[in-house]
Amino acid sequence: MSRPHPRSFARALGDFAAGTDTPRDFLERCIDEIEARDPEVKAFTAINLEAARDAADASTQRWHEGAPLSPIDGMPIGVKDVIETADMPTGMGSGLFDGYSPGHDSASVHALREAGAIIVAKTVTTEFAATRPGPTRNPHDLARTPGGSSSGSAAAVGSGMLAGALGTQVVGSILRPASYCGCVGFKPSLGGINRGGSHDYMSQSCQGVLAATLEDTWQIAREIVVRAGGDPGMPGLIGPAIMPDARTPATLAFLETTGWDVAVPEARDAMLRVLDDLRAAGVKIVTRHDDALVAALEDVIPEVLPLTRRINAWESRWPLNTYVDRDASKLSQGMIDRLREAEAMTVEGYRADIARREEIRAIHAKVSAVAEACITLSAPDAAPLGIEATGNPVFAVPCSLLGVPALSLPLLRVGQMPLGVQTIGYRDEDAALFALSAAIVDIIAPANQNVA
Amino acid sequence: MSRPHPRSFARALGDFAAGTDTPRDFLERCIDEIEARDPEVKAFTAINLEAARDAADASTQRWHEGAPLSPIDGMPIGVKDVIETADMPTGMGSGLFDGYSPGHDSASVHALREAGAIIVAKTVTTEFAATRPGPTRNPHDLARTPGGSSSGSAAAVGSGMLAGALGTQVVGSILRPASYCGCVGFKPSLGGINRGGSHDYMSQSCQGVLAATLEDTWQIAREIVVRAGGDPGMPGLIGPAIMPDARTPATLAFLETTGWDVAVPEARDAMLRVLDDLRAAGVKIVTRHDDALVAALEDVIPEVLPLTRRINAWESRWPLNTYVDRDASKLSQGMIDRLREAEAMTVEGYRADIARREEIRAIHAKVSAVAEACITLSAPDAAPLGIEATGNPVFAVPCSLLGVPALSLPLLRVGQMPLGVQTIGYRDEDAALFALSAAIVDIIAPANQNVA
Repeated sequence: MSRPHPRSFARALGDFAAGTDTPRDFLERCIDEIEARDPEVKAFTAINLEAARDAADASTQRWHEGAPLSPIDGMPIGVKDVIETADMPTGMGSGLFDGYSPGHDSASVHALREAGAIIVAKTVTTEFAATRPGPTRNPHDLARTPGGSSSGSAAAVGSGMLAGALGTQVVGSILRPASYCGCVGFKPSLGGINRGGSHDYMSQSCQGVLAATLEDTWQIAREIVVRAGGDPGMPGLIGPAIMPDARTPATLAFLETTGWDVAVPEARDAMLRVLDDLRAAGVKIVTRHDDALVAALEDVIPEVLPLTRRINAWESRWPLNTYVDRDASKLSQGMIDRLREAEAMTVEGYRADIARREEIRAIHAKVSAVAEACITLSAPDAAPLGIEATGNPVFAVPCSLLGVPALSLPLLRVGQMPLGVQTIGYRDEDAALFALSAAIVDIIAPANQNVA
Repeated sequence: MSRPHPRSFARALGDFAAGTDTPRDFLERCIDEIEARDPEVKAFTAINLEAARDAADASTQRWHEGAPLSPIDGMPIGVKDVIETADMPTGMGSGLFDGYSPGHDSASVHALREAGAIIVAKTVTTEFAATRPGPTRNPHDLARTPGGSSSGSAAAVGSGMLAGALGTQVVGSILRPASYCGCVGFKPSLGGINRGGSHDYMSQSCQGVLAATLEDTWQIAREIVVRAGGDPGMPGLIGPAIMPDARTPATLAFLETTGWDVAVPEARDAMLRVLDDLRAAGVKIVTRHDDALVAALEDVIPEVLPLTRRINAWESRWPLNTYVDRDASKLSQGMIDRLREAEAMTVEGYRADIARREEIRAIHAKVSAVAEACITLSAPDAAPLGIEATGNPVFAVPCSLLGVPALSLPLLRVGQMPLGVQTIGYRDEDAALFALSAAIVDIIAPANQNVA
């Protein structure tokens, strides 16, 4: 089989405007790929092809009339199955919600439809966007996990079955699968995209985007936010109507995190070559070994994963207790264990945990004095063999706890498998992160047709 | 008919412990009152007496064994019908959700059941906790509104049909009906009580409590929060296991707000007598006329209601747009108008509004340098005649926008109708507000058997 690659939508816009391509034809190419690949990849829990074709025809007509609703008018998009859709069930990866249909779209899905995007399918999630995997396989090697929890979204986009997808992340659920499946993954600043109608209630959970290119990624997020805003009380993703131009950063902070010690040699070597290439392009790289502010951040990163897990457990007490009330036999042991852990916690302990999280966020914010962003791997290795587990989130969790924007850029390979480079920005400065990430892509993979 | 009065639960605990009263008997007294009054008052959308009696019997058994689950074990409670319950529908005051049943309890209701409280009924709300009233009438005068949007909760508690109730407030939806119906109303600090499973998504919306006494009010909130926490990412209601002792404040700031000019003379006179009584008890009262920090706050209060309405409109865009998709004919014109207003807004305008809200919050926070709390009326008059509107929220909205705790204390009367005195505290200092409010009750109504 040919190596799968993600599918850029922005590059088709000129052809739509010229009439040499149409959103309906774009969709049919996606459907061809779905029919060819999805029987093996299993990225979807539901597909609504009839509605998708109708929507693509309407979009084609708008482009024909020179009146598209937005730069994503006609884009085929998948929706992680914890996010509600009016026309397809929202199963949350749980037998407890098999066939559950709320009868309405989430805030983000409603906004995407307003922008003319085509909601093609619901994508497989792990159980309640947590640990127990679904049936999805990695499109680059069916013997491997796609990562999780946004498993189907990453597999669908990384394989070119769809141009874009919505995901959610509270630990590493966007960056990790994006890294494993070879697409861009974007976790915005805290509250950057309105979570209304998404079953991810936790305080560091974010809705985010997976797509072929940085440009498509930005556009999807932007079109949602101008129509639906961010989470209530939050400013929402801030930035221009189209992605800002690439801008080479003067200084980046390379973060080892606790992942560096467990990263495979090929991944470490690839990352070190990225740093060399950036230095050769004039970017100064600071590290824990030569900068006190970076060292201070690295020193607290070992706390991040256990702190995240405690915070998530407490914040999952509800609704997990109601799920147990309904039918505990339909929950994984992992979910029941999380509830038992939560029930042993106290609100006072939780308060101490969120106060510590604020301290760690402040330690990270100080790094802005010496570096325009942080850079590291997205994962310690390519996707592991087997689909019984979704891989190690060690590199992806710091940006979740910090509440800051992060991108996984599909720039590296370990053997034949993709691996992401991660960039981590500062709170509500998502646009700056896209600009410098675009420059990094230009430096590391100038000929890469799929990431620009 | 005899004048209705709210029903204290805490005062029954000694009798439960002594075996001279039981939670089942307490419940039966509530049911007697429901049967006598509710055919006229119409406080409820659903009542589950069978489950309530079973729960009361179980509670009676626990008290008999000397092992109550909490100080609210056995308390009959009503739940505003925007808050989900496993055993009763959640209709949200809208034909669109007639009979809707999510199949699970909200975080707060689940916590109440864990604490042994008895969930007796769902209480009438205005449409989506906004403007269009339900059928409820004021138990003190059936020709008058109970206020809204927590209409049924206030009517049920103010009449003694239930000992406590949950409400929600984003403008004036707890304090106003508590004032009109003659019970205590508590709007906590922002995020003080977990809103999981409640259909109030707005950034200044809070879940709160209505009860007969400050002691009961505190206990209900406290028992929820130790089991369910506050909103994710928030510390939740902070304070001791039982309500702190009364503590007379050294200084209070009297706020006129924009309500003073429209308050009826009887209400103004009653409020001025309260201030005189407080001064006589040694409390210093500062006002806009003699303190620059209070004056600075008063100067921005005229912005509060329009700013709140704009913020709420933007934040209601979703889910209102999905309701219109489903069946616009089932929405009030007011709801459709709110959506149209929201659709004319931009995310940039919203950002400016929430930034201004932060500035106003900072102006209020500075008042803490001169006063331990603010005090004012809860409403400009007793409940108005008619049930087609829920009254003027002018006095209640500042605490909503400020995100700070506030109480309505049932201390005044206009003619035969109750009117509340409002105390307003500082963010996450809810316990201090209860302590000084208890002192105010002792000063103003030392013989009041229902508020202590």
